[in-house]
Amino acid sequence: MNINKFMTPEIIFGKDALEQTGESFKRLGANKVLVVSDKGVVEAGWSEKALANIRQAGLDYAEFYQLSTNPKDEEVRNGAAVYINEYCDAVFGLGGGSPMDVAKAVAIIVTNQGNIRDYEGVDQITRPLPPLIMASTTAGSGSEVSQFSVVVDTEKQKKMTIVSKSLVPDIAIVDPQLLMTKDPLLTAATGMDVLTHSIEAYVSIAATPLTDVQAKNAIKLVSEYLRPSVASASNEEAKRAMAMASLQAGLAFSNAILGAIHAMSHAIGGKYALAHGEINAVLLPHVMEYNLIANPKRFRTISELMGTSTSGLTDMEAANTSVQMVRKLLKDIGAPQQFSDLGFQEQDFVVMAEVALEDACMITNPRDLSVEEVVALFKQAL
Amino acid sequence: MNINKFMTPEIIFGKDALEQTGESFKRLGANKVLVVSDKGVVEAGWSEKALANIRQAGLDYAEFYQLSTNPKDEEVRNGAAVYINEYCDAVFGLGGGSPMDVAKAVAIIVTNQGNIRDYEGVDQITRPLPPLIMASTTAGSGSEVSQFSVVVDTEKQKKMTIVSKSLVPDIAIVDPQLLMTKDPLLTAATGMDVLTHSIEAYVSIAATPLTDVQAKNAIKLVSEYLRPSVASASNEEAKRAMAMASLQAGLAFSNAILGAIHAMSHAIGGKYALAHGEINAVLLPHVMEYNLIANPKRFRTISELMGTSTSGLTDMEAANTSVQMVRKLLKDIGAPQQFSDLGFQEQDFVVMAEVALEDACMITNPRDLSVEEVVALFKQAL
Repeated sequence: MNINKFMTPEIIFGKDALEQTGESFKRLGANKVLVVSDKGVVEAGWSEKALANIRQAGLDYAEFYQLSTNPKDEEVRNGAAVYINEYCDAVFGLGGGSPMDVAKAVAIIVTNQGNIRDYEGVDQITRPLPPLIMASTTAGSGSEVSQFSVVVDTEKQKKMTIVSKSLVPDIAIVDPQLLMTKDPLLTAATGMDVLTHSIEAYVSIAATPLTDVQAKNAIKLVSEYLRPSVASASNEEAKRAMAMASLQAGLAFSNAILGAIHAMSHAIGGKYALAHGEINAVLLPHVMEYNLIANPKRFRTISELMGTSTSGLTDMEAANTSVQMVRKLLKDIGAPQQFSDLGFQEQDFVVMAEVALEDACMITNPRDLSVEEVVALFKQAL
Repeated sequence: MNINKFMTPEIIFGKDALEQTGESFKRLGANKVLVVSDKGVVEAGWSEKALANIRQAGLDYAEFYQLSTNPKDEEVRNGAAVYINEYCDAVFGLGGGSPMDVAKAVAIIVTNQGNIRDYEGVDQITRPLPPLIMASTTAGSGSEVSQFSVVVDTEKQKKMTIVSKSLVPDIAIVDPQLLMTKDPLLTAATGMDVLTHSIEAYVSIAATPLTDVQAKNAIKLVSEYLRPSVASASNEEAKRAMAMASLQAGLAFSNAILGAIHAMSHAIGGKYALAHGEINAVLLPHVMEYNLIANPKRFRTISELMGTSTSGLTDMEAANTSVQMVRKLLKDIGAPQQFSDLGFQEQDFVVMAEVALEDACMITNPRDLSVEEVVALFKQAL
């Protein structure tokens, strides 16, 4: 591609960054903020902390917390109704990928009207969104910096990928303290999501020098810090590094887009109530192996970033090593390694493959896939 | 620092990126654009190309090209008068650091009123600026992505550093083709400015993991591509790499700020009509040598990024190597190596040292300096 575009929100990163929420909304001219979050975040006490901070800045707010793990179009409608009935003029997404993606989707609807399904695909949003701030509580989705929102279309039972520059939040707040409450399985799953983001962005056909520096650094950080982060919820250094990895992976994939893993993962996540990070963890080594021949040199670099020496190896040998490194990581952190670990059985594979091939993320995968090839990959991962 | 903030404009990078100017202004809601540029850019034909593109998008424009190499406060006033008399509602900076910095300063005045001197220092701008797009024609200043504008205070005969988030342009256009017209000395000087930005940002006390990845990549790119870029004005690969280096150095220093070299360089540039990049080239090795003990490990990394192996060396030995690498580069590209090369004599050193110590860039230098120490560094560079 001749022309590269690169967009990022303003980023506020560090311990106690959450305490910048109120002032940040004030700076954006907000009066009443719709706070979109979920039960887990409320129970951890983070939403109360954010609300207190918003109050302190002299701003009003309304709350919306009724979300599923893979949030649905009807939940977006409900959130938008709260925004309108409460006369809100700004949106705050606080949590993992689900609350942030719903917050973005609500922001679309309240200024662009209609149903969230109308905005599926690339660049379907025409009117500016209200001021938008995201604060992430998982080192995973990258939604705090990305131009993506992913929501389930309940009619078609699939995840819709919505991509638009206007979904890049005005401000991303990343406070590593918010990650301290996570259990090891969630840490492992969201961490594998970060690794998947950075690897898919790095081998994407839309990768640019600007996305490469972010993706490469994220791969390195995950390789070094995901194990200790899973090992201990109170390891501050590891949490901080994983928060940075998530952020950088987000900057990379938001601008380089993703690939077959996310396309396939969205197809599964639309049908089954499985965690996105766990599905990605299972798919990652299989799809990497399939993609290797598209760009052996880049996979060689991935091996090196993950800490292996590749001297003396051919490009393909060195590329193969990256797959082994990922399998080793999955094993070490106790992440699921096959769909049967997730209680997921072979069914609807052909339908899901067709859905995956239509997903916006499939366009930038470095190797072409047919329905048969996607089905074969699903089967390998069983 | 606990809280890191990171801001970047939307970036449009690549061959023919200049042809996105009109559409970009349209997207920002502009009707009539003030185009700030200078004679060199006009003669190279770039302003006509941009104007045609703005016309094609159905937008109107006014032109302002009366600028010095080190642009002055009164030129900002003149530019603002054109903006107001012509009923403009957006500003386009097209050129090297001078036109871009004036474009930003004009944007400050037209919405914030008063004299540009009122806004010297950090965060003095209170009202939002009009839509702002920058297109750089030198791989140097980084102003296309930075929150900086530097303008001469003619009364005090010094450069004012204005730092504010609102100076980050809405969109940065980087078209490496625009660099093809440069003569070798200008290429060398602007390239050394890029290296100075990235080194100062990397050792700044405000450096963060987000600025580090950008700074490190910029140092690597300059080390690899500045020599071939000086050697041939038509080496597309080298021009593209230097444009990327300039951009990444800009992202780094805009968020990590700079150090003593820029503070001292601003003090000189306010008094003498010397090119900013040439002054930096002369100062760089001397100030690096002075700063080494503040962070030997970071200077060791600089040596490695510049292509040397440091194995077997102590941190201080490895750090020292970075100074030698810079001297070698200066020599290879024919950049000035001492002030006498610039026809610059010892005088006013004490006054300039006092001015330098007041500059906003001095705050983030990794080693403290007194007036005597700044004077000693000036003398070393004679």
